[in-house]
Formats: sequence, C-alpha cells, structure tokens
Amino acid sequence: QSSVQISGRIDLAARRVDNGPDTQNQLVREGARSSKLSIQANEDLGGGLSAGVVLEMQVRADNGTSASTFWERQSLVRLRGPFGELRLGRDFALQNSIGGDFDALNGKGVGNMMNMATPFNFSNTNTYTRVNNAVSYLTPNWQGVYAQLQLAPSEGTTGNRHVAAGLFYVQPGTEARATWGRTKVNSVGRVNALTGVSRAVAAEGEFDYAGLGLSHDFGPVRLLGSYLFWRSAQEVVTGQRRFQRNLNLGAMVPVGAAGSFNVAWTGADRSGLGSDDQDGRQLGVQYVHKLSKRTLLYTSWARLSQSALAAADTASSGARYNVDGTTLLGRTGGGIDVGIVHAF
Amino acid sequence: QSSVQISGRIDLAARRVDNGPDTQNQLVREGARSSKLSIQANEDLGGGLSAGVVLEMQVRADNGTSASTFWERQSLVRLRGPFGELRLGRDFALQNSIGGDFDALNGKGVGNMMNMATPFNFSNTNTYTRVNNAVSYLTPNWQGVYAQLQLAPSEGTTGNRHVAAGLFYVQPGTEARATWGRTKVNSVGRVNALTGVSRAVAAEGEFDYAGLGLSHDFGPVRLLGSYLFWRSAQEVVTGQRRFQRNLNLGAMVPVGAAGSFNVAWTGADRSGLGSDDQDGRQLGVQYVHKLSKRTLLYTSWARLSQSALAAADTASSGARYNVDGTTLLGRTGGGIDVGIVHAF
Amino acid sequence: QSSVQISGRIDLAARRVDNGPDTQNQLVREGARSSKLSIQANEDLGGGLSAGVVLEMQVRADNGTSASTFWERQSLVRLRGPFGELRLGRDFALQNSIGGDFDALNGKGVGNMMNMATPFNFSNTNTYTRVNNAVSYLTPNWQGVYAQLQLAPSEGTTGNRHVAAGLFYVQPGTEARATWGRTKVNSVGRVNALTGVSRAVAAEGEFDYAGLGLSHDFGPVRLLGSYLFWRSAQEVVTGQRRFQRNLNLGAMVPVGAAGSFNVAWTGADRSGLGSDDQDGRQLGVQYVHKLSKRTLLYTSWARLSQSALAAADTASSGARYNVDGTTLLGRTGGGIDVGIVHAF
Repeated sequence: QSSVQISGRIDLAARRVDNGPDTQNQLVREGARSSKLSIQANEDLGGGLSAGVVLEMQVRADNGTSASTFWERQSLVRLRGPFGELRLGRDFALQNSIGGDFDALNGKGVGNMMNMATPFNFSNTNTYTRVNNAVSYLTPNWQGVYAQLQLAPSEGTTGNRHVAAGLFYVQPGTEARATWGRTKVNSVGRVNALTGVSRAVAAEGEFDYAGLGLSHDFGPVRLLGSYLFWRSAQEVVTGQRRFQRNLNLGAMVPVGAAGSFNVAWTGADRSGLGSDDQDGRQLGVQYVHKLSKRTLLYTSWARLSQSALAAADTASSGARYNVDGTTLLGRTGGGIDVGIVHAF
Repeated sequence: QSSVQISGRIDLAARRVDNGPDTQNQLVREGARSSKLSIQANEDLGGGLSAGVVLEMQVRADNGTSASTFWERQSLVRLRGPFGELRLGRDFALQNSIGGDFDALNGKGVGNMMNMATPFNFSNTNTYTRVNNAVSYLTPNWQGVYAQLQLAPSEGTTGNRHVAAGLFYVQPGTEARATWGRTKVNSVGRVNALTGVSRAVAAEGEFDYAGLGLSHDFGPVRLLGSYLFWRSAQEVVTGQRRFQRNLNLGAMVPVGAAGSFNVAWTGADRSGLGSDDQDGRQLGVQYVHKLSKRTLLYTSWARLSQSALAAADTASSGARYNVDGTTLLGRTGGGIDVGIVHAF
Repeated sequence: QSSVQISGRIDLAARRVDNGPDTQNQLVREGARSSKLSIQANEDLGGGLSAGVVLEMQVRADNGTSASTFWERQSLVRLRGPFGELRLGRDFALQNSIGGDFDALNGKGVGNMMNMATPFNFSNTNTYTRVNNAVSYLTPNWQGVYAQLQLAPSEGTTGNRHVAAGLFYVQPGTEARATWGRTKVNSVGRVNALTGVSRAVAAEGEFDYAGLGLSHDFGPVRLLGSYLFWRSAQEVVTGQRRFQRNLNLGAMVPVGAAGSFNVAWTGADRSGLGSDDQDGRQLGVQYVHKLSKRTLLYTSWARLSQSALAAADTASSGARYNVDGTTLLGRTGGGIDVGIVHAF
C-alpha cells in the first residue's frame, strides 16, 4: 500500500519596518509561518515497517523565486519500523529546531526570536539550518520520550562534518526538547572592538550549538520558551572563542474559539573576542485569527534594541541583530506585519 | 472544504525563421500557447468567502530549463468574498494583459503582436510582464463589469515601485478591457538617430504603459484587436520622452467543428528621442486544429517589416522588432511554425 | 479521457570510496537506481490516437539540489497512433541508452559500467546524455521489433546538430538493441602521451557513438551485456581521430523470491591521438533485496584498474576512468555502497 501527497503553505504579509534611521514598506514572505511545497510518499511494508520519501522546497512567493538549493528544506528517504527510524539525505539541522518550535511567534516575522541568532557570523559552518548528506537515527517512542542522532561526513569540505543529538519529550499539552550539534570548521567571525568591523579569522576545532526548549499548556495560557547556546571554534592566534547565550520567554493566550494573542521576549548575551558588549533585547506581540484550520490572518508588532558595539558593526559579515532579514542600521528598530497564511 | 489541483500545458513547434540575411531551423516553445505547470489550491470558508494559492512556473520544454525566477508566472495567495478579491505576491502585470488576450494569434509564435512591443528598451522597469511584491484588489463583478488595482512597493530598488489599474467588461461573446500601469524608473533607452546604437540614459519620473482591448464574436467571425501605448520617463539632459503606439487588428474564423483560421495585423509607431522613423508592420496567419479540447495542432506564418532606423539598430539593448525572440538582422523577416499543444 | 500522474524515485547510499591514495566516506545519490520526479499526462483521443506530456527532473537528494537544467531528464510532448509515435522536446540521447539498460548493475553506483565511459572528453558535444530541441519518430511495434529516429537542429550552436537511430527487439525475457548517434562538433580532447595532460584541440566533422546490447533470461540466471563504440571528430592538424571500445558482460542471479545477486565486468580500450595505452578494467558485484516492489535495499562492491597513462592524466578535462563521479588519483580504486531505494 502506497501513497503520494502534495501539500504546501504560503504566507505573505505587508510590512512596515523601522531599521533605525529609516523606514520601508515591503511585501514579505513568512511573517508567521514557513512557506513551502512538499511531496511526501509513504509505503506500508507490513510488519510495522514503512518506507517513504520527503521532498520539500521553500516557496518565496513575494518574488516567485526558489532557494538556490531547490529542495532547500528537506530531501530524504526513510525507513521506519519497530527499531525506530533511519533517514538519509538533506535534513533539518537537529540542533536548530528549538528556536522556532518553542517561540510564541513561531520563529517567523518581525518579532521572531531568530532575529537575535547570528551564528552564521560565528564560523564557516554549512550545517547551521540544514545538513547535507545526513544520516539520522531516531529511537522508538517510549512513553513520549525518544532520541535522535544525526551524522554527516565532510566529503572533503570544511564546514560539513557534523554530529548532533537530541532528546524529545512529547505529551498532550507539554513538550520538552534538548539538542546539541557540533560541526568542524576552520574560521571564526572576529569583530574589532573599536571599529565594529567583522572579518573571518583562522580557527581550529568545532562550532557548537546547543538548546533547551520547554512548553506547557495551562489552559488559559500556554507558556513556552527556550535557551540557546553557541560557541565558536578556537582562534588560532589568540586561542580564544566567542560565545552567545539567548533566552526566549513567551505566552500564547487563546481569544475566543479562533484567536490567539502571542507575546515573546528575547534577550541575547554575547561574549569573547571583544564582543562582550554586543547584547540585544527584543519584544514581539502578535494576534492570529483562524478563518479555518488552513487559513489564518495575523498582525505582529516588534521592537528590537542593541547595545553600542552591535549597532556600530556595519560590516556585511558583521554581528548585528536584525529585524527578520532587514539590516538594522541604528541601535533600535522594529516593525509591523499584516499577513495571510493559506495551507493546502 | 479544500482542494489542490495540478495542471499545465506544453506547446512545442518546429520553426523555420527568416531573420533577414539568414534562415534557421529551430524547435521552439510556445508557438501558439503559453507553456506552464500550475499548482492551485482553493478552500471554501463559508459565507461566500474563499482562500487560495496559485503557483505557476514557465516550462521551457525545448531545452528542459525553467525560468531564472522559478515561479515565473505567478506565486500568490488570495482571499475572495463578497467584498471582491485581495491578492498578494508575484502576479501578472495588469497593464500587459491586453496584448496577448486580444491578439488573434494569442500573443505567441512567429506572428504574435508582442513581436512589435519593445518597451524593455524604454527603461529599467522590473514590472513590464510580472510584478513582484504586488498587492491587488479586484472589485466584485457587477453585470459583467469589474475593476482591478495593483500596487507594489520599491523595497529600495529602482524599477519596482508600481501602480496599475484596469477596467473589465466580460459578456458571453464580447469582451472589453482598459488598463494603465506606471513604474518609477531612472533610465530610458536612447537610440542614436545616425548610428542606431542604443544606450541607457539617465531619466527621471515614470514609465507608462496603457492599453485598450476589444473583442466580439459575430458568429461566422470573431473580430478583435487592441491599442497599446508606451511612454518613457523624461531624459534628464534633454527633458524629452520616447513614445510608442501599437495597433493590432485580428479575425478568427471557425472552420468546421474543430478548426480556426486566424489573421492578425500589427502596426508600430515610435516617436521621440530620435526614434520617429522606427516603425514596423507585421502580418500573421494561423490555422489551429483541435484534436480535442486539450490537444491542438497548428501552423502559423508571418512577415514583419521595419523602417531603416529600426533595422540599423544593432545594439543588444536596441529597439529592433523581432520575430518571437529571434534577432532580426535585416529590415524584413518572418517565419513558419508547425506545432502541437497538449494541456493537462 | 485524460490523466495526470506524479511519480518518482529516491536512491541514497552510504559509500566508502577508495580513489587511489586516499579513501573517503560519503552519502551519495543513485547507488543503484536513477533518482527523479516525474509528471506524466496522457489523453486518449480515440481512434488509437493519444497525446501526452512527460516532465522529469533529477532529484539530487543527498544535498537537495536540482540539476542546472531543471527538467534535466525529459521535457517533451508526444502524439501516438497507428503511425507510431512523434516526440518533440528535450529527450534522452537515443545512443546513450544501452550502457545502463544492459548493465547488470543498472549503470549506477560504484560498479556501474559508465565509470569507463568518458566521451565527454572526446568532444564538445551537447548531446551525449540528453538532446535539446529533439524531434523523434518511433515506428509501430511489429512483433516486438521497432525503430526510432532522433534529430536535433544546431540552432546556431556547435555541438547541437544531432542525428541518431535505433533498432529495438523486445520479447518477454529477451531484449536486443542497436543504436548509433552522430553530432557535429569542432573540438576533440587531446591527451599528451608523455604528460597525460588533456586539452581541447580544433577538429572537424562528427563525433560518433554506437552501441549494441543483448539480454536473455535463462531462468536461474539472466545474462546481459553490451558493446559501445566512440569515435572522435578528426583533428584539424594531424587528421587523426580517437577511438574507444567498451565491452560489458554481466549476470543477474535471483536469490529466493526477493533477492538478486548481480555481477558485471567492463573493459575499456582506447586508441588514437596517443591514447593507445589508456585502457581500464572494472569488476562490480551487487546484492539487491526487495522489501517490496517499490522499496529496495542494496549493497555493491567494485574495483577499477587503469593503465599508466590513464592514471597519469590529471587534467580536469582529462581522460581518467573514475569511480562513479569520484576522481581517481591512482591506478586502482573502488568502493562499497550500502543504500536504499524508494519509488512512488
């Protein structure tokens, strides 16, 4: 018995973004949900065994483009059975799943917690959001608890060799997750403490990324949040590393049968390699109204502030915090999204 | 209630094209119909309200490529109800719809009227055929009459800021449409009157594109045609503009139950910035035979002639008229298509 | 009556490859089967006539990319009837079908016979594996015998003008095929006999590619094999050509109801333009286990050896034999694949 399913989701929003000295009107994608097109196949092989395929692309519906990696989100084959699940191919980076999944604003839009996550600047890793050539093993689910191990070879390219592990606890209304990922790299982003200019500097060893997420539904409110930790490889010359710690706290309050009022606060604390003052704070507020299970209307508002050094950093490879892809030129910024989501 | 639909169409033709001093044999796409692959989703939300998604790519089946913008044709989400329709995303440029829809040869192939439309040369607009980041509103249909407004922000890039409006009248057998579009640009294509060489020259203001289309089915013949008008932005140095006016007249004569004999004549009249003599004429003749509603065979023949200055213009950014993408080197050219269309 | 069908297949394998002085671990695509996503439409037009469309892309699931030509495998429209079949568009190169179809290892993976086929080095042909702008005619099937003719115009580009012909014999358990293809080119890959360095050298005339494949199922074993022949165009300066002849012999032995043990041996013999010593040998062994008709597990092992000159050739456009895309640096190499295939 075998099935193929095509599904997807488009999220587009009108945005007014204040990126410091200036404001701009935009039509943007993914103000509240990821936008994607997915082909999933599944075959029941009997005896509790099943095989399947996932092919999933980003849809950048504001300008009609695809990502430069066509199946940007996932392209994998999997085998599931009493032994658990084996998965081969391009997959989500296990350690990067916590930020979005435990954010009251879903890791998307003007107020999303990932605005404060800038480890792209930390190193030349290729495994920050997705992992190529990944081999994953997931254990069977035991009373809501399961674990995942994710490995990828270097295939001769620095920034590819990767190992990640995760522990999951999922119950109705409650979820907890801990993840850790490590990638072999040979550079770190160095920010000059005086000028704020960032440049790639030779390093040795691994880039680490760990996270913890918690979520519980108390009925009138769901509280949720996460703690993320990044550690760069060690600079060859100074023997030092850079660190970042992000804390995200959120609440989701049901409003009537179809509405949800969501609030999230994020703080970012960076240290090492002259970045001790590069901290940031963000507040996001969102209202989501369901026209149906598949169709949502939403509006979000957010403010972000950052300390002097982070704001002064104007290099393209710099360590600024930004409003969802918009370059923040000053020390404070923010924006408003008004959008629509349709899933199919 | 929700549905997803995949549909598409492939049109391929053997062509012999006479581009002036030379002739060439080709296999070409879109000799009579657009080639595309489309994913459409729709959900009935009750109360006359519905939501949906359109993702539509070009299919260049002669060589297997996609357009550089993957969802080149459309990528949008829409909400329809008693209030009309709201549409966000990449969409057809409203003002550019008339040329093809009111051409007896459907705006495709050796004899298509858009061979005489060269406003790409007029300016650095990004909104000539498609509009990114577009927000569209369509009024409800009132006795066959409705209107559309289309807006797009600049998002910091010249050639993006766009406004267009359209008025539609649709009845069984009769159709009329008037459209106008305006895009902010900062260059205009300047053609040297002596050498024919074209180059981008600084301009200020807007590029305008307006059109009027009419079509009526008299039974033994459908008569149809359009008038298109382009106006460049104003050159900074001379304070002058360039203009173009195209007139297209056509007839479609049913032949038996499955055939249609189609004729279209197009004249192009350019003026301003030393282009007063760059005129052109084209005649296209086509026979289409339906093997079914989905499968067509067709053959088309066309001749195009242009005045001395247009023909002399050999710059790549020049203002030549061409035979459906084929560079016309002389003052006259033409071609023959023999093709097949299958829609699914 | 009309139908649209979406199907596909993903094959991913863990590989350890020995490319001479070094070994590397990889996750690779297509260890045993092609990976693809296909959209096929078909319409029954009555009277034995039918029309249809094939759009088929490569799926590079190890890293989520598509080929640079989006519909890399096929993009065509076809009309079938009592007269045979007419096909327009991008299509498989007829002459290149034998290597894979008559290889016991299916032309894929560490032991695939196409490791020894390097005619990309022979010339600047664009028609080695696929043909753009192709027009194909297939005769009706007469007692298992039919023929195909494939033509493509140059459209002004060297390496495009192509003609190929094939004769097919297909019966239950038995298959035979002979093909020949010719493409107009203007270069040939020249390998210096002393240094092994290869470079493009001006040539005139055609690149030829011919093949013969045979397969018969004796019950306890299927024997199959092929003979391939390549001839470069004639160098302008020396008036000489380069030749290559490959022989492939294989056996497929059913093991129980779900297994198959496959062995293939390939020998390559090159001559002309100082390449007389550039020979190679390869042995591949494979076991395939069917979990279902759609889901396979497999493991393959292969060794490849090449003579001194072939091994010495280190130019990027060189004439080395390689282990399925892996650059072979020494005179011997090989590898192991352990993989999974799921078709949908």
